[in-house]
Amino acid sequence: MAKALVSYYSRSGNTKKMAEDISASLSNEGLDVDVISIEQVSVDSLVLYDIFVFGSPTYYGTMAYQVKKLLDESVKLHGKLDGKMGAAFSSAANIGGGNETTILDILNTFLIHGMIIQGDPKGDHYGPVSIGVPDERAKGNCQRRGKRIAALAKKLFK
Amino acid sequence: MAKALVSYYSRSGNTKKMAEDISASLSNEGLDVDVISIEQVSVDSLVLYDIFVFGSPTYYGTMAYQVKKLLDESVKLHGKLDGKMGAAFSSAANIGGGNETTILDILNTFLIHGMIIQGDPKGDHYGPVSIGVPDERAKGNCQRRGKRIAALAKKLFK
Amino acid sequence: MAKALVSYYSRSGNTKKMAEDISASLSNEGLDVDVISIEQVSVDSLVLYDIFVFGSPTYYGTMAYQVKKLLDESVKLHGKLDGKMGAAFSSAANIGGGNETTILDILNTFLIHGMIIQGDPKGDHYGPVSIGVPDERAKGNCQRRGKRIAALAKKLFK
Amino acid sequence: MAKALVSYYSRSGNTKKMAEDISASLSNEGLDVDVISIEQVSVDSLVLYDIFVFGSPTYYGTMAYQVKKLLDESVKLHGKLDGKMGAAFSSAANIGGGNETTILDILNTFLIHGMIIQGDPKGDHYGPVSIGVPDERAKGNCQRRGKRIAALAKKLFK
Repeated sequence: MAKALVSYYSRSGNTKKMAEDISASLSNEGLDVDVISIEQVSVDSLVLYDIFVFGSPTYYGTMAYQVKKLLDESVKLHGKLDGKMGAAFSSAANIGGGNETTILDILNTFLIHGMIIQGDPKGDHYGPVSIGVPDERAKGNCQRRGKRIAALAKKLFK
Repeated sequence: MAKALVSYYSRSGNTKKMAEDISASLSNEGLDVDVISIEQVSVDSLVLYDIFVFGSPTYYGTMAYQVKKLLDESVKLHGKLDGKMGAAFSSAANIGGGNETTILDILNTFLIHGMIIQGDPKGDHYGPVSIGVPDERAKGNCQRRGKRIAALAKKLFK
Repeated sequence: MAKALVSYYSRSGNTKKMAEDISASLSNEGLDVDVISIEQVSVDSLVLYDIFVFGSPTYYGTMAYQVKKLLDESVKLHGKLDGKMGAAFSSAANIGGGNETTILDILNTFLIHGMIIQGDPKGDHYGPVSIGVPDERAKGNCQRRGKRIAALAKKLFK
Repeated sequence: MAKALVSYYSRSGNTKKMAEDISASLSNEGLDVDVISIEQVSVDSLVLYDIFVFGSPTYYGTMAYQVKKLLDESVKLHGKLDGKMGAAFSSAANIGGGNETTILDILNTFLIHGMIIQGDPKGDHYGPVSIGVPDERAKGNCQRRGKRIAALAKKLFK
């Protein structure tokens, strides 16, 4: 069974809520999921997971520095995360406020680790986005993304 | 008086409506403005303008090919648009659907021409975004952007 | 056996050369490969492939409009390319001249189609890049990328 | 006289060397320049500058977390940096290794503060890039960028 780490930085609680919605969806699909605040994740533990789903509030159009700090430290594992899966989500204050660039920023770091990512032809293409407190639209996107991640994981990790 | 070209590709009419809102705001601020569909713009005419405000629907997270076609052809003017101003806007079907990447895609082409661009600390930071038919939020952003472009133009082009 | 379409726009021949190097590598790994200039690809034929590897020269930091034109037209297939694989490459005149943004631009369109993409922890992380005529460094990256695409394809398409 | 802050994070010394080359060029053009390691910059001091030139090594395709930390903290000044100038540079291990995305990442944060940025039609379009230890190519780009920043500053801040 594939093992997923859903991690996030959250001050307002919005990004955390999205993390929980995605985790619930991944669990529902039968994955083994840990949901951990990014500041509590040990960099060495990353090798234990098959799938990384990282979320950040949209801070100046890029991920919060706390998320980047873990990713910078992950350089000690460089090459060992090759072939794993990555996905990202973000909560923002405004439409057009940098939520897409925040998600793509996280996805770029995953690509540089050699990870596999997937888009979505419906809804939030790059990853789930919430504008303010997650509403039904955002929740639906989190749930849907969880299902899609699980479907791909079943093909990749058996 | 600075001369601005507001140009757009639009099939549904949403991007065109945004072009008109931005143009009205630029005119209000005293700029000399042409609003022309991108397919009617002659590449040679670009040297006559000080300011370019280009809009595109969000098609697969990047500008419509019709917009890119004109920009590809503008290579014959390479170096002659250095120091002019650029700005961009986009209309999309969904939140998180690629509107930011479309705007940044256009802004990147302007940067490579050596142009000057500016963000906005309020609202749509990279450029005005509409989700579907421009609503009051989108109209406000178009109007505000027009004012900001005019304010910078007054400093740069006298 | 997975079927790949390697397609490109090329005026100088540099991007075409990269397409040939990637294709040779994919064939070597046992994939069924078509290499076709982007202007000759029929949009309807896209459903027949499992893997898309698209290349473009770096024109103003984004893909050439000829590449975008096909991708814009592919909207008629929207949803039908979900779960397929995508990869991208670019040739540029200069380091720091927009080659990464060109590749990411193509990858974004693939993500919006719901495709699966993968990075590389070594060399050209987002996709192979050539500065001018492909040298040994660029050729090595094309060959390596072909192997990696084939390895993932074997997991996804059986 | 416009006042510039050139700041950087550097472990290998490569990004620091670029910072010094850009600073020398800005000073030569008559600007008042401070060159300070990013970890020593007080966030409150940012309001004192007209121009920000920030550099980072390319770490996973985005800025080092130490650079992002200062930018995250700058939210307390949000709105007060509107209309100032921004520019960015990066040193990377490889071509195609994320240097452009690192620079654009920094530029996006500046845009969200409402800053003014400019590209360059020659050389490194988005900002100076070094592959490894800055060579003559990279030094030339740093010097050229300094001149261009100074030329724009003279128009904007008098």
